Amino acid sequence: VLRHATRSITKESATQSNQVISNKQLLYTTDPLTPGSIFFLPHGTRIFNKLVQFMKNQQIKYGFQEVITPLIYKNKLWKQSGHWENYSEDMFKVMGNVSKEDHEVQDVSNEAHEHHHEHEHNAEDEEYGLKPMNCPGHCLIYAKFDRSYNELPIRYSDFSSLHRNEASGALSGLTRVRRFHQDDGHIFCQLEQIEQEISNTINLIKNTYGVFGIETKEIEFHLSTRPEKYIGDAKTWDNAEEQLTQVLNKTTGENSWKIREGDGAFYGPKIDVLLTDAFEKKHQVGTIQLDFQLPTRFNLKYVGEEGNRDHQPILVHRAVFGSLERFFAILLDHYQGKWPFWLNPRQAIIIPVNEKHVGNAEALQKELSGDILNHDEVISPMTGYNFYVDIDKRNETVGNRIKEAIQKGYSYILMLGDKDIELGTVAIRSRDNRKVSNLTSQEVYKMFIDLEKHYK
Amino acid sequence: VLRHATRSITKESATQSNQVISNKQLLYTTDPLTPGSIFFLPHGTRIFNKLVQFMKNQQIKYGFQEVITPLIYKNKLWKQSGHWENYSEDMFKVMGNVSKEDHEVQDVSNEAHEHHHEHEHNAEDEEYGLKPMNCPGHCLIYAKFDRSYNELPIRYSDFSSLHRNEASGALSGLTRVRRFHQDDGHIFCQLEQIEQEISNTINLIKNTYGVFGIETKEIEFHLSTRPEKYIGDAKTWDNAEEQLTQVLNKTTGENSWKIREGDGAFYGPKIDVLLTDAFEKKHQVGTIQLDFQLPTRFNLKYVGEEGNRDHQPILVHRAVFGSLERFFAILLDHYQGKWPFWLNPRQAIIIPVNEKHVGNAEALQKELSGDILNHDEVISPMTGYNFYVDIDKRNETVGNRIKEAIQKGYSYILMLGDKDIELGTVAIRSRDNRKVSNLTSQEVYKMFIDLEKHYK
Ligand SMILES: [Zn+2]
Ligand SMILES: [Zn+2]
Repeated sequence: VLRHATRSITKESATQSNQVISNKQLLYTTDPLTPGSIFFLPHGTRIFNKLVQFMKNQQIKYGFQEVITPLIYKNKLWKQSGHWENYSEDMFKVMGNVSKEDHEVQDVSNEAHEHHHEHEHNAEDEEYGLKPMNCPGHCLIYAKFDRSYNELPIRYSDFSSLHRNEASGALSGLTRVRRFHQDDGHIFCQLEQIEQEISNTINLIKNTYGVFGIETKEIEFHLSTRPEKYIGDAKTWDNAEEQLTQVLNKTTGENSWKIREGDGAFYGPKIDVLLTDAFEKKHQVGTIQLDFQLPTRFNLKYVGEEGNRDHQPILVHRAVFGSLERFFAILLDHYQGKWPFWLNPRQAIIIPVNEKHVGNAEALQKELSGDILNHDEVISPMTGYNFYVDIDKRNETVGNRIKEAIQKGYSYILMLGDKDIELGTVAIRSRDNRKVSNLTSQEVYKMFIDLEKHYK
Repeated sequence: VLRHATRSITKESATQSNQVISNKQLLYTTDPLTPGSIFFLPHGTRIFNKLVQFMKNQQIKYGFQEVITPLIYKNKLWKQSGHWENYSEDMFKVMGNVSKEDHEVQDVSNEAHEHHHEHEHNAEDEEYGLKPMNCPGHCLIYAKFDRSYNELPIRYSDFSSLHRNEASGALSGLTRVRRFHQDDGHIFCQLEQIEQEISNTINLIKNTYGVFGIETKEIEFHLSTRPEKYIGDAKTWDNAEEQLTQVLNKTTGENSWKIREGDGAFYGPKIDVLLTDAFEKKHQVGTIQLDFQLPTRFNLKYVGEEGNRDHQPILVHRAVFGSLERFFAILLDHYQGKWPFWLNPRQAIIIPVNEKHVGNAEALQKELSGDILNHDEVISPMTGYNFYVDIDKRNETVGNRIKEAIQKGYSYILMLGDKDIELGTVAIRSRDNRKVSNLTSQEVYKMFIDLEKHYK
């Protein structure tokens, strides 16, 4: 993966190295009061949000519809989904501190009251599970409406936070956590639509990783096929595995992916997508999992073209980044803190040569920050380009301030003195090169837009 | 509030009326498996996300820094914050289904191991609370670093989901829920900075509500002052209340706000912001709460200009929308499903007159959808304008399709037939007016940008 990492392999781990960069750049922190849950600090949040925005933009193109779904569901749901049986040890349970039925409020509307009487009132009914996955929630949404063949594929995406009760000894930085976010998606489709859907997903994975400078040859694809114990009929499995094989050959090339015979889940074959870090550690990132089971457990149906109401869709679970926290860690390792401009939470800094240039520096900051700050209305506009531009107006030498700006990882450093103001330009240099150019503020702003738009 | 609502007051409630619109427009749904948690369907999610994006853009301008903070914290935190004592009945508790210490994994890194030994291993240590508020998390972040007077005010914003265990009988639509999202913000500042911060907040509230057509005279501001039982010293209370009074007089006008003597929380005075719906029901939306207590409980400090390390900041909790779910409900009631263009999850629909115009309709859809769809690269660009444009290519009369589009609430209906294609224009009408204009696609796109940018 890590084309930019030239370090030789040492005993240092990626986790430790990431922690050092995070501390320097103030990206994230943790606390023993909630082991395995990340606090993203303001600058880390900027990167996190950029990754989410990136993926939302891609998913619109691929026909995904974003939904927002609950975090807690009664145990009845987890029994129906099979998580109760197979996954409950890894889940957190949730319950009210007191039963709220006992001191019910007086002011109940009729509607709320009716609702209330639908439920049984036993203790177990008040126990919830904190969701480790979004799939059951998406199945509930699918099942709320009559579905027809011509609506399929239905593709839901969800960026909700997920919780898994990992052993505390296993927790490690951003890669082994208890709370994380996935660029999660579920596709409900017909058997014969699998090839197209998986092909789209693999292309999205390749193109997405490409944006971060990760070439296709650096990505490992592993197809896991039917295990000895499986559900569903062998013919469906054969058909699905044949489609997955075709897609992998077409999208990654023959012989450029691995097969793990019999290693699929009992409910469907899957494709794991792996990257290797500079310390030779492999990380699972993207994932594509076919599922013949959940549609049965949730009794999901659609009406076929011939009018038969009893068709069952196939469910595909898929994620491109996988865990956003883990992908963040991989990017930390990959870039070693030298974020490309579009991802950088510190895109530019302006250094006024001395005090009398501060006013000009502030005007320049406003202009380069883009649409949200550069206008005179009381309400900021909805969309457009916005950049993170700071000023260092401390009473330090220009040289010291440049040095510190480079250490902090700013992509561009802009210096503003008498001569610049006279010429109507600004002296700009990049983090990596001493060469200084003299550009107008409009030229700088255009360059920023171009960099952001093309993920440079 | 509800200038657009011309209905007389009936026995119908806003909740029931909202439900009818939501069902028609497929905005949200609920399920007895998770009472009080909303499922936002794809079109409801579009509105929800637009509201969040709106507020993020405003908050950048007001100097807020977004953070992402954990959802679960050990009981020790809730004891420190005082929630354990005063609020635990309204909280959900969380615990692992099995103690993960028992079957600890073998492959522990040194770092993780060290961490592990820091904790005591008793049962209570494994119990968490699901957060009802973001403040304790933000206090933890504040406390992680040495803070100086010249960093203040520090303003954190957070759009995390919050859980409160409301009695199930009290649950009602979007307004009484167990899971909700706030446009939450916490300001850590000096006593003498309160006036400026509160002034900014009230201006943001007025300007924000104005975007939705809610005039300042329709907003109620209630100042609640020092109760009999209070913490902190009376002088600080007097100073703070004096500043709040000044701000209210300046921003809303004298006599245009109400005082609730002695109605403040024991830890600080507050300003509640209320709107009234068409059924004469009041809803608390925005809130501004001063807090002299949490900074003590979390031992928050900053270094003053004179070098004294023992200064304590004041904490201001504030929200502009308040609960996004409740604000969504108020907007449903306010617009009665007739969303303005910028918020509308169905911004435009194209009706090709017959089958042979479908190709042109699809090209037009791509063009009007904006930057994410209208380009030929494999990866969609990062920012720009994007609109929700559908096509109705069903074999129905144009009249029927227009009628249905109006019922579904599309802002604009675009018709495309032989004559339009010949002229290089499209016939466009709004939801509310039969008048048809003939515009080029570029003219339509420019109009869309103008509407979105100015929240029309
Ligand atoms: Zn899933
Ligand atoms: Zn708060």
